[in-house]
Amino acid sequence: MANGIKEKIEDANKEAIDKVLASNPVLVDVKPAIEAVPGMKKNMIMHAGPPTDWQNMCGPMKGAVMGTLLFEGLAETKDDAVKIIENGEIEFSPNHEHHAVGPMAGTTSASMPVFVVKDETHGNTAFARLVEDKVQFGDYGDEAVNGLRFWRDKLSVAIGTAIQKAGGINLKNIIGKALYRGDELHNRPDAGSSMFANMIITNLIEAGMAQNELLPVAKHLISDDIFFLGLSMGACKATMDAAHGIEYSTLVTAMARNGVEFGIRVSGLGDEWFTGPAGMINGLYFPGFTAEDANPDMGDSAITETAGLGGFTLAAAPAIINLVGGTPDEALKYSKQMQEITMAKNNGYTIPALNFEGTATGIDIRKVVKTGILPIIDTAMACKDPGKRMIGAGLVKPPMEAFKKALHGFAKKYEI
Amino acid sequence: MANGIKEKIEDANKEAIDKVLASNPVLVDVKPAIEAVPGMKKNMIMHAGPPTDWQNMCGPMKGAVMGTLLFEGLAETKDDAVKIIENGEIEFSPNHEHHAVGPMAGTTSASMPVFVVKDETHGNTAFARLVEDKVQFGDYGDEAVNGLRFWRDKLSVAIGTAIQKAGGINLKNIIGKALYRGDELHNRPDAGSSMFANMIITNLIEAGMAQNELLPVAKHLISDDIFFLGLSMGACKATMDAAHGIEYSTLVTAMARNGVEFGIRVSGLGDEWFTGPAGMINGLYFPGFTAEDANPDMGDSAITETAGLGGFTLAAAPAIINLVGGTPDEALKYSKQMQEITMAKNNGYTIPALNFEGTATGIDIRKVVKTGILPIIDTAMACKDPGKRMIGAGLVKPPMEAFKKALHGFAKKYEI
Repeated sequence: MANGIKEKIEDANKEAIDKVLASNPVLVDVKPAIEAVPGMKKNMIMHAGPPTDWQNMCGPMKGAVMGTLLFEGLAETKDDAVKIIENGEIEFSPNHEHHAVGPMAGTTSASMPVFVVKDETHGNTAFARLVEDKVQFGDYGDEAVNGLRFWRDKLSVAIGTAIQKAGGINLKNIIGKALYRGDELHNRPDAGSSMFANMIITNLIEAGMAQNELLPVAKHLISDDIFFLGLSMGACKATMDAAHGIEYSTLVTAMARNGVEFGIRVSGLGDEWFTGPAGMINGLYFPGFTAEDANPDMGDSAITETAGLGGFTLAAAPAIINLVGGTPDEALKYSKQMQEITMAKNNGYTIPALNFEGTATGIDIRKVVKTGILPIIDTAMACKDPGKRMIGAGLVKPPMEAFKKALHGFAKKYEI
Repeated sequence: MANGIKEKIEDANKEAIDKVLASNPVLVDVKPAIEAVPGMKKNMIMHAGPPTDWQNMCGPMKGAVMGTLLFEGLAETKDDAVKIIENGEIEFSPNHEHHAVGPMAGTTSASMPVFVVKDETHGNTAFARLVEDKVQFGDYGDEAVNGLRFWRDKLSVAIGTAIQKAGGINLKNIIGKALYRGDELHNRPDAGSSMFANMIITNLIEAGMAQNELLPVAKHLISDDIFFLGLSMGACKATMDAAHGIEYSTLVTAMARNGVEFGIRVSGLGDEWFTGPAGMINGLYFPGFTAEDANPDMGDSAITETAGLGGFTLAAAPAIINLVGGTPDEALKYSKQMQEITMAKNNGYTIPALNFEGTATGIDIRKVVKTGILPIIDTAMACKDPGKRMIGAGLVKPPMEAFKKALHGFAKKYEI
């Protein structure tokens, strides 16, 4: 019987990882969440990580929720926002439970346009919120909220036009090239952003967009080095969703944090979350901030590591050390070490500095628990207080507890 | 007396390398060579490397000269071209003797627009020919020559407009960023090309260029990964010219090859060339070509290595190994080894994979001869026969003879 189970797991994992490797994520649209995302509601705020509620939310997520309600026009003031939340008028739901991902607080509202990424190989669709540097960190001030308005009214519209003109934009191609250009595709997507900007702008020229519309979009895209992270996250979510829901598979299909808890989902374990406390980040602080100011780990952006990018491809991006700390040797070692807890090397995403080895891809909960090696995540840091922006960046490991709980859940479900 | 000389050399080299490190190359214009380049003539073809003439030219340079005469309208056919050359109607002159550089054959004619790069720190100006993939390798066919016409009539005009709109484009900034994005800035300038395209296209939008003019320019720039090499070469030439002509300095200010001879110039030795035979390249061939087809080393592009980029920054660009051969470890070792024959590390151009060490910069002829370590150059390969294009790429070392001759020349001039 034990042998039977083991074979079933191996077969399931082969099916799952083959889907990950064959995935071909293409950006096909940008649409308001209410029009695109299954289960989205007008009074819903989707958020990063496993489920939470207002009482249990960390400071920066509370700030981001307030900023998002102001953006959405559901509240006029910060105090209004708190009042309608406390009246129970706002429903909270994790992005991941809607095939979606969002950076840091990840707060996504009905009218907020999201990237629509289709895995052309398997036909499933994922959604990703814009990456910006204000509301997602908890800032709810006018400038922060105006950034979301620019996204909704101008930038997303233009990108949608460019996508239609291009007939879709293949994200796998850009990610593969970006790994040769010093990106790890989580906190360093700079080369990807530059390539994406060129494609969008050129398609908008071809689409005949008027100069006064095109210029602010072009200026934004060529100077926003972090922009491509939203696309990288969307691509990774589409890829991992394709491999979700395979009975007996021990593949991790999501790692996400809400700033209080870290949670994972596993292909063979349905939509259940397995959680532990979100870790503190070991890294570098911007001037004026210290560890005292930092919120625990937050965001759905660890979907990049889940798909074999981000911390797993640090070896491709030694320049990120300026942002997150460490040494180039450590970067190489992390990327090699992740091979011990993963199912395959992805030959679609290779790392030149490791002799063009494929990225370590597909975390197996069994290998994590057996080896004691935790996935490495590189991440931005939010301030623990609402109303602030990014205060630093660094490396973090998830709690082993989440993986052990998942393994117990697996044993229970499959009666091992 | 010997001590006196040694101090003079050290002082001169300090002055020279300080100029290299302080150099701030900015792209300020694109102009026809006849309007910009000192000493340019209507019947002149400037070429790569040390001086040569028609009788002694290698096959690909002959092909490039013919293509350039067709482009210039000085000949109607290939046979016409040969006839007017043999009649002595065409004057040949090395780019370097006009503060200019050109890739591979480097053939530059009067009406051909060149990049104008000013070292804003020292006020000197350098000129660089466009990098393309046809005429410079010896192809003189219609498609090849039409590529130069597109450059002259459309692309250079647009880039000139963008430069004016931007008020100059700082190349040092782009190069510094590109080193963090997997470029070594000689045979891999891809990230630089992407960033340059971002800037040019956005400035052209701002300048109000009409869609039908802008679209072909944008499409070209976003797909021509090698484009930035012309800018990188121009920047390096401006930088090294700033340090040329300092009495007693043993700094190499130019390394260049005409496909037959490799030559260097030295800061304290005026405009004299010190030469040896151009080497054969050790690398990878495109399908259908072998070592039998290869021409010896050619081009002014080794100005990048002269300024501490290219082969000297292989450690920044492990992905180039796909093109030139070798391993990531060898790339790291080459970049470290070049520290043994250079005067300084350039903190303006740093290499993340080497713990952000500055690039090894400023070749000292004394150190090359003393250590026996030759500069490492990565380079494209031309076919030995005229009429062909690029056949591969690889690594090459210059002949020690050139450095020994320079050291003898130095001893003679300064009576050591």
